[in-house]
Amino acid sequence: MINVLATDAGGTSTRAVILDQTGQCLGYGFAGGGNPVSSGPERAAASILAAAEAATDSAGRQPADVEQILIAMAGMSVSGATDWVTGLLAARGFPVTVTVASDLLAIFSSGTWQQNGYAVVAGTGSAGIRVRKGRVERTADGLGWLLGDVGSGYWIGHRVVNAAIASLDGRGENTALAPLLVAALGIEHSEVPGPDGRPASLRDVIEALYSLRPVELSRFAPLAFEATTDAVARAILDDAVLELARLFSAIRSPDLAGPLVLGGSILTAQPLIRDGVTHALSAQGFTPEVRRVPDGVVGAAVLALREAGVSVTAEVFERIGTTLARLR
Amino acid sequence: MINVLATDAGGTSTRAVILDQTGQCLGYGFAGGGNPVSSGPERAAASILAAAEAATDSAGRQPADVEQILIAMAGMSVSGATDWVTGLLAARGFPVTVTVASDLLAIFSSGTWQQNGYAVVAGTGSAGIRVRKGRVERTADGLGWLLGDVGSGYWIGHRVVNAAIASLDGRGENTALAPLLVAALGIEHSEVPGPDGRPASLRDVIEALYSLRPVELSRFAPLAFEATTDAVARAILDDAVLELARLFSAIRSPDLAGPLVLGGSILTAQPLIRDGVTHALSAQGFTPEVRRVPDGVVGAAVLALREAGVSVTAEVFERIGTTLARLR
Repeated sequence: MINVLATDAGGTSTRAVILDQTGQCLGYGFAGGGNPVSSGPERAAASILAAAEAATDSAGRQPADVEQILIAMAGMSVSGATDWVTGLLAARGFPVTVTVASDLLAIFSSGTWQQNGYAVVAGTGSAGIRVRKGRVERTADGLGWLLGDVGSGYWIGHRVVNAAIASLDGRGENTALAPLLVAALGIEHSEVPGPDGRPASLRDVIEALYSLRPVELSRFAPLAFEATTDAVARAILDDAVLELARLFSAIRSPDLAGPLVLGGSILTAQPLIRDGVTHALSAQGFTPEVRRVPDGVVGAAVLALREAGVSVTAEVFERIGTTLARLR
Repeated sequence: MINVLATDAGGTSTRAVILDQTGQCLGYGFAGGGNPVSSGPERAAASILAAAEAATDSAGRQPADVEQILIAMAGMSVSGATDWVTGLLAARGFPVTVTVASDLLAIFSSGTWQQNGYAVVAGTGSAGIRVRKGRVERTADGLGWLLGDVGSGYWIGHRVVNAAIASLDGRGENTALAPLLVAALGIEHSEVPGPDGRPASLRDVIEALYSLRPVELSRFAPLAFEATTDAVARAILDDAVLELARLFSAIRSPDLAGPLVLGGSILTAQPLIRDGVTHALSAQGFTPEVRRVPDGVVGAAVLALREAGVSVTAEVFERIGTTLARLR
């Protein structure tokens, strides 16, 4: 019996599962951010190790019982060296051979055992892939907060913040986003103009926001979903739908039907965005079977089994899902 | 005879002029960036000192001959302490009392000796002020690259870059901005798709742009002005005009007519933007006398004289301009 360890290493959390070649999940572990770009290589490696050890411990297995390790992580990390994590894992008795896979492919494979289709993710960032014969054939976006990530949590949050500020500054339309932003920052709102003729709270808002890393503006995306009756908020969300539909157009191939796997909180937990995007796709004449997944850990398990030479059938895929659900 | 020293300390360069109470400019000096936020306090203070010493030297005067010093600089610096520069100036024999004034007020006062009106600046950043009785009564924007600076060089450059990338990524409309950006970065363009199905040059573009500080994206604003027949570029410039007109709406007061002083390379050197904004204002029923200024050094001189108790008449203002022009 072969045991494999599959790890889904994300920016804010890392999930690991140990499973056998039938798809039976034996142990599950969870830890903090495991992306070397956002957490730094040392913290990322420590998170991956912690999740891996938690998974083997909960399965009552030893690191030496693991034959194969696969780590799914964001694209930019996939192309680089993996010494930052393999050394630490080997020092604790895990095998030295580690395969790194695309986190987007893991999301796709969390939704289907099939090897053709699409995945689109919109969480803090956004990206899409077309998958053919189990490989990524086309990628769109995933280009980061400054240059891309259209329709993502950052993208929406940045627009929310700028619309609120334009309103406070007297340049933009009045919007319910302004008091919501002021309140979200814990700032006392005042209509009394400051010495420069603007609301005194504007300066506090600006200072508070510049003290964040830009990507943290994603935390203000939920304000748009709180204010969907506000015309300004609604326009931001409509634009997000439009951008995500365009992202999909970039990866779509007429000869590949689906399924379409959706991941990330913006696409999976916000019906307005999800339904908007599927509606826009159907207007393009495309009505794929749509599946939503919470993360890429099932897909990482699928990819780890394939890497070990296991053919992942519908039955094996089903078993991974049901046995993992019992462990989480 | 009173001699005053006026300094216009900007992000990329600093100008200083020494003049007497009649408005006769006696010496002029120029140095590097003098803004403590963008250059750091030490380099900024060194630039201001260098410009001041160049001005007094060229006038054949000593630092001790200066009775008053005024430094015009960006808003955020105005409110803070000035020890970072006054100590250095005093150590070289300049007077210890230094007045700091708003760089926007200096721009306004470079265009008129009158004490009521408006100034709007769009260079790397953007901002506007309403001036009444010689004081800033209302400010709009000037909130930095991430949260404001609408219609500025950064604002346009960021949109140019994102439109070019969306086009290369297959998500956005085809645009002439894409090959212009690739060429501007010195990257060899290739239509051959890379392993992820996107043009191989896209990765190089992304890497090159993330190696810049975000605010440096302003250097790509000129690409839009090179491609005004391109629909995507034209839409960016039309939006910039709209945003600058909105910025003006935020500072306008019905009881204050003008003049309107324009500063910054985007507003003064780009007819498409300048004419677009004045056209938009006239559509709002507002047709102020418009004056363009290259920088704030004349205005800094005006403010320095007023600080010394001199009444700056049309005649004094005219003399500052003509005698400074001979020195520059």
